[in-house]
Amino acid sequence: MKIKLGIIGFGGMGKWHAQNAPRAGVEIAAVCDIAEAKQKDAAEMGYKFYKTAEELLEDPDVNTVVLTVPNHLHKEMCIKAAEYGKHVITEKPAALSVAELDEMETACKKAGVVFTAHQNRRWDRDMLIVKKAFDEKLLGNIFTIESKLHSGNGYMHEWHLYQKYGGGMIYDWGVHLIDQILFMMPEAKIKSVYADIKNVLHEEVDDYFKIILKLDNGITAHIELSTYILEYQPRWLAAGDKGTMIVKSFGCDGNIYRTGKMLEKLPSQIVETEAGPTRQFAPVPPGGIVKEELPEVDTDWVDFYKNVDGVLNGREESIIKISEVRRVLSVMEAARQSAQTREAILFE
Amino acid sequence: MKIKLGIIGFGGMGKWHAQNAPRAGVEIAAVCDIAEAKQKDAAEMGYKFYKTAEELLEDPDVNTVVLTVPNHLHKEMCIKAAEYGKHVITEKPAALSVAELDEMETACKKAGVVFTAHQNRRWDRDMLIVKKAFDEKLLGNIFTIESKLHSGNGYMHEWHLYQKYGGGMIYDWGVHLIDQILFMMPEAKIKSVYADIKNVLHEEVDDYFKIILKLDNGITAHIELSTYILEYQPRWLAAGDKGTMIVKSFGCDGNIYRTGKMLEKLPSQIVETEAGPTRQFAPVPPGGIVKEELPEVDTDWVDFYKNVDGVLNGREESIIKISEVRRVLSVMEAARQSAQTREAILFE
Repeated sequence: MKIKLGIIGFGGMGKWHAQNAPRAGVEIAAVCDIAEAKQKDAAEMGYKFYKTAEELLEDPDVNTVVLTVPNHLHKEMCIKAAEYGKHVITEKPAALSVAELDEMETACKKAGVVFTAHQNRRWDRDMLIVKKAFDEKLLGNIFTIESKLHSGNGYMHEWHLYQKYGGGMIYDWGVHLIDQILFMMPEAKIKSVYADIKNVLHEEVDDYFKIILKLDNGITAHIELSTYILEYQPRWLAAGDKGTMIVKSFGCDGNIYRTGKMLEKLPSQIVETEAGPTRQFAPVPPGGIVKEELPEVDTDWVDFYKNVDGVLNGREESIIKISEVRRVLSVMEAARQSAQTREAILFE
Repeated sequence: MKIKLGIIGFGGMGKWHAQNAPRAGVEIAAVCDIAEAKQKDAAEMGYKFYKTAEELLEDPDVNTVVLTVPNHLHKEMCIKAAEYGKHVITEKPAALSVAELDEMETACKKAGVVFTAHQNRRWDRDMLIVKKAFDEKLLGNIFTIESKLHSGNGYMHEWHLYQKYGGGMIYDWGVHLIDQILFMMPEAKIKSVYADIKNVLHEEVDDYFKIILKLDNGITAHIELSTYILEYQPRWLAAGDKGTMIVKSFGCDGNIYRTGKMLEKLPSQIVETEAGPTRQFAPVPPGGIVKEELPEVDTDWVDFYKNVDGVLNGREESIIKISEVRRVLSVMEAARQSAQTREAILFE
C-alpha cells in the first residue's frame, strides 16, 4: 500500500510536505485549506484541492493525512480523520496537552489507523553528531549537554503570535528541542524539570525559555531558546571528563576539544594576568588544548516518510512513538508549571 | 591612622597582598606562616615574619590583619585577631557558612574592630561593563544575565582539593560570581535559587556548577563555572529587549549587538536553509544585526584598600558590608541544598 497523502492546511508546512514527501515515494493525493488564497496556490501548483477537511476526508484516493493546520486544530482534525479511517501524521506539537493527545490516540486506536507526529528534527545532523558523542563516549562521561537556539528575527509570524492557536516558542520549538534530548538518551529517566519562561518581545506568548532536565545518568540537559539573543551562542555544547564538543550551528561547524596532562599545566604560583590573581583561571599554555574534527553522521529526513510507509505496510515499528510524544508534552507541562511556581518539578 | 597590615598565611594570596596593598599606602608590618618554606620566602623578600599567628597578633606594629589562610581557618583566625584588637580583612569566602560568619561578626563587634572581606572581583572591568549596561539601560529591559567562567586547567591545586579545608569551586569562585550579581543589582530581591553542582574530575570537591537566580526585577541570573569546559563560552552575556551584550573574557573583548526593523526581516515563506524548514530561525539578512563597541569603565582594585583606610579613619562606609557577605553565603547554602534535593529553594 502506497501512501496517498491528503494535506490538511496548505500554509508554509503544508506546502513543504507537498514538495518534499514525494522524495520518499509518497503520492500527494489532495490538499485542502479554508483560505481562498491557499486554494489558489494549490490550483496553481497543480494539486487536487478541497475547501474543507471533510471534503478531503471523503476522498477515497486519500489513505493518510498530514495535519498542517495551526496547533489548536490538531486534536479536532486528528479525531475526524480517524473516524474517516485515514492514517494520521500530525505536525508538531501533536497536541496542546497530554489530555488532548490521549483523546487523539484513543480515537486512532478505535479506528485502527496509524498515528504519528512529524518530529522531523530527529534527523538533524547537528543533533546526531552530539548523539554520536553520547553513544560512543567520545567525550568520556558527559556531565552537561546544552542545546541552544538563538535568533535575531525577533517577532513571530501569523498564528504563532496568539495563545488560542497554540502559539509561542515552547509549542513551536520546545517540542523539538526536548524531543531531541529524550531521543538522544532514551534510557535516561528525568529526575527533575526546572524552567524559566519569558515574554521578551511578545505580550501574549513565550519567546524565551531555559529548561533544565536533571537525568539519572548524571547528565544535566540545558535547553534554551530566544527569538532575541543577537549574538548566537553555540547550537550545542556537550562537555565530558574527556573533552568538550561544540556544534556551532545547524551548519555543523565545530570541533571536539581535548587536553593533555592537566595537572602539570597549572602554574605553580598565582599569576597576575588579565584574569586577575588566579591560578585556576589563568590561561592554558599554548598547545594545552587541542582540536579534533567533529565525527561524521549520515542522515536524511526522507527516512521519516519511508518509516511511515514501513509502518503502514507492517514492515517496521514507528520511529516516532506516541508514548514518546506524550513524554515530551509532559515535560512541556512541567516546564510551564516550574516557570509559574519558580519550583522545580520532580519527575519520573 | 595608617593601615599597618599583618598577613596571616604567606601562600599565593598572602604574597599577592604583600605586593599589591602598598599601592594604596598600606604598610606591610609583618607576615606569618607555619610552613618553614614560606617563612623562608618572607625572609628573602625582606618582611618581618613570625612562625605563628599569635606572635604576629602580639606585635603592636600591626593594627589590621588580612587572613590568607585556607578557608576553614578564617573563623578561628578572625575571632583571635578581634580578641587582640586588630581590624580584620578576610579573604573570600569570609566563612564556610552563615553560622560561622555570625560568630565572626559578633566577635568583631564585641572588640570594636572593623570586619570586611576581600571581594576584589567587584573591581573587575568585565563585570562593571555589564553593570553599566544594567544601570544605564543600554540593552532596554534585560531578561537574562549569564556569568560564566570556564577553564581548561582541570585539576585544582593544594588545599582547594579537600573538603575539610573549604575546598571546591563554589567556595573559591562561586562566592565571587554570586557577589558580583548581587552587587550589580543591589535593589533586586532573589525569589528562588536553583543549582546543578557536579564533581567532574574531583571526587571530593565540586568543580562544576550552574546556579540560577530568579530576581524580582524580571532578570534571571545564570552563574556557571567549570574547570573543564575546554572551549570557553563568553564570560558575560546580557540580553534585553533592545540588544545583547557579550563580554568574551576578562580581557573585555566583546560588543553590543542590535537589530533594526525586526518584523520586516522575517521571510514571508518558510525557507529551506541549512536550518531546515523554518522562518523564525532562518538567517537574518546581512546587515540585520549591527555591532557597537562596549562602553568604557574606570576601575582600580586599589580602591579596596583605600576604602578600608577610609573606614578605619571614619571617612567612609565599607564598600563590602558583612550583610552582603552573609547574603552571598545564604545563596551558596541554598544552591547546595537545591543541588542535593533537585528542588528550587524559594528565597527572600
